[in-house]
Amino acid sequence: MAVESEFLDWLANRWGDRPGLEVPVGDDAAVLAMGGLGGLVVTVDMLIDGVHFRTGEHTPEQIGRKALAVNLSDLAAMAARPVGAVVALSLPRGTSNNLALAKGIIEGMNPLSLELGCPIIGGDTNVGEGPLTISVTALGVPSPRGSWMRSRARPGDRILVTGTLGGSLAGHHLSFTPRVREALALDERYRIHAAMDISDGLSLDLSRMAKASGVGVLVDVDRVPWASAAIEMASGGGPGPLERALGDGEDFELLLAVGSEEAPRLLADNPLECGLTDIGEFTADTRLMARRANGELGPLPITGYLHN
Amino acid sequence: MAVESEFLDWLANRWGDRPGLEVPVGDDAAVLAMGGLGGLVVTVDMLIDGVHFRTGEHTPEQIGRKALAVNLSDLAAMAARPVGAVVALSLPRGTSNNLALAKGIIEGMNPLSLELGCPIIGGDTNVGEGPLTISVTALGVPSPRGSWMRSRARPGDRILVTGTLGGSLAGHHLSFTPRVREALALDERYRIHAAMDISDGLSLDLSRMAKASGVGVLVDVDRVPWASAAIEMASGGGPGPLERALGDGEDFELLLAVGSEEAPRLLADNPLECGLTDIGEFTADTRLMARRANGELGPLPITGYLHN
Repeated sequence: MAVESEFLDWLANRWGDRPGLEVPVGDDAAVLAMGGLGGLVVTVDMLIDGVHFRTGEHTPEQIGRKALAVNLSDLAAMAARPVGAVVALSLPRGTSNNLALAKGIIEGMNPLSLELGCPIIGGDTNVGEGPLTISVTALGVPSPRGSWMRSRARPGDRILVTGTLGGSLAGHHLSFTPRVREALALDERYRIHAAMDISDGLSLDLSRMAKASGVGVLVDVDRVPWASAAIEMASGGGPGPLERALGDGEDFELLLAVGSEEAPRLLADNPLECGLTDIGEFTADTRLMARRANGELGPLPITGYLHN
Repeated sequence: MAVESEFLDWLANRWGDRPGLEVPVGDDAAVLAMGGLGGLVVTVDMLIDGVHFRTGEHTPEQIGRKALAVNLSDLAAMAARPVGAVVALSLPRGTSNNLALAKGIIEGMNPLSLELGCPIIGGDTNVGEGPLTISVTALGVPSPRGSWMRSRARPGDRILVTGTLGGSLAGHHLSFTPRVREALALDERYRIHAAMDISDGLSLDLSRMAKASGVGVLVDVDRVPWASAAIEMASGGGPGPLERALGDGEDFELLLAVGSEEAPRLLADNPLECGLTDIGEFTADTRLMARRANGELGPLPITGYLHN
């Protein structure tokens, strides 16, 4: 088992139900009750050169933008409104342009920070022996209707996804806009049972939502919306567009569980510019199944980015 | 100029007075207004193997404890009450005991977390090419009387320090209890003009408080309370105990500016078990001066840990 998953399981068992925690450890973000002060949603993500980006290929501005965006995607997955973020940097020792690097990272965060109302309010800078490492903690105000959780999908719920999936490495993973506005708009007008963001691949993240909710899934895989980048990348060989949509990851779209009566209303309204697609249903049977357009049924292949 | 200082100056100019920020960038922690929700104090500190600790010498539990403690010290410096913290880890790739390492770090945080009411509410774990890196973001509720800032020392204010200083590397830097309870007790009963924690050395941190406040200092250096560790370390050669008290750093004691009428009352009350010492005064003259017990006057030597 990968260290991250095993560690998370340990954390959830050892620390999961601490007083003041409104959402157990293991969701996209933590929700702190804050006494009578209205609650706070907190998420942290650390990005490391060579794992989440490459300083040789990506500009400091692109890297900074991504570091903020992945955290805002976690807030979106909880239907939280961003209020601010702090940034910690470890800059690589012996690099002559560390100051330009640090400034570029922060400048790269700025447009997204302004667009989604999440000012950078503080930080910490260090020089270490390792690769460039960026840790962003983003803070949000929870929805007055309660935070979205990944553990509340119910049998019979429809599985909905925003936007299109796959091929993110072609550029989307650096340029995506986290679905903050979409989440807030959906939360205001519709009853969403469960949500998470798709960061490690649709099939893997869907399996996590199913496990957390104690349900299974029946995915109509031919309805999964491929990104054009998934088709382009597939034309270069390797996995096909469906495999890419199921397993590439870093889509940062929303994965939603919506009641079977609410879902048709939502889809008919079509309230999001990025689109919403019904790709199947959550089932009482806890297996993870895939159905082709021709009716062929088989196990859903679980692929995606497994943290090591 | 060191990268960190230059970057901080740039940040303060470029980002210092963002809407919603109650305390400008550059203080021990950021204070977010949060609309009508009562405000939030946020601080982040990143610790890196080889810079802030050594995995060869220190246990995972010691390292985890320190990573939380330095952040709680920043909350104490603002008179904030801790409410929770999140932890991001970069574990070194190719190490066989990464899971034990991650668990040990979190276990090491637990006693302090319980003692000072700061539960670990979430985190992120990664494996990277670099050394063990820990980023902790701690959250606090601001004092109802307003957050302490380092920029509000006034000419005539007395300079007070908690505890004793110097020789922290002998063990104090791993075992200290951040002055959270002391800060809350002082804030409740006394009017503190300005505060910060002593992390980089008394003289360096004092020079920062003076600069932020637009004042100078006259330090009665022979009154500076040495730690017994400073004497022991000095007996092994190198800097003397006074030099160690002025410049060793990692004391994590509180440095306070208190009005000249309030200070004697506070010192007579002697409300803290760790002790409080008057070591001089803030001056309208912006020079940083040292006075010996024999009346000899000279510039205060500014030594301490300069981040590179």
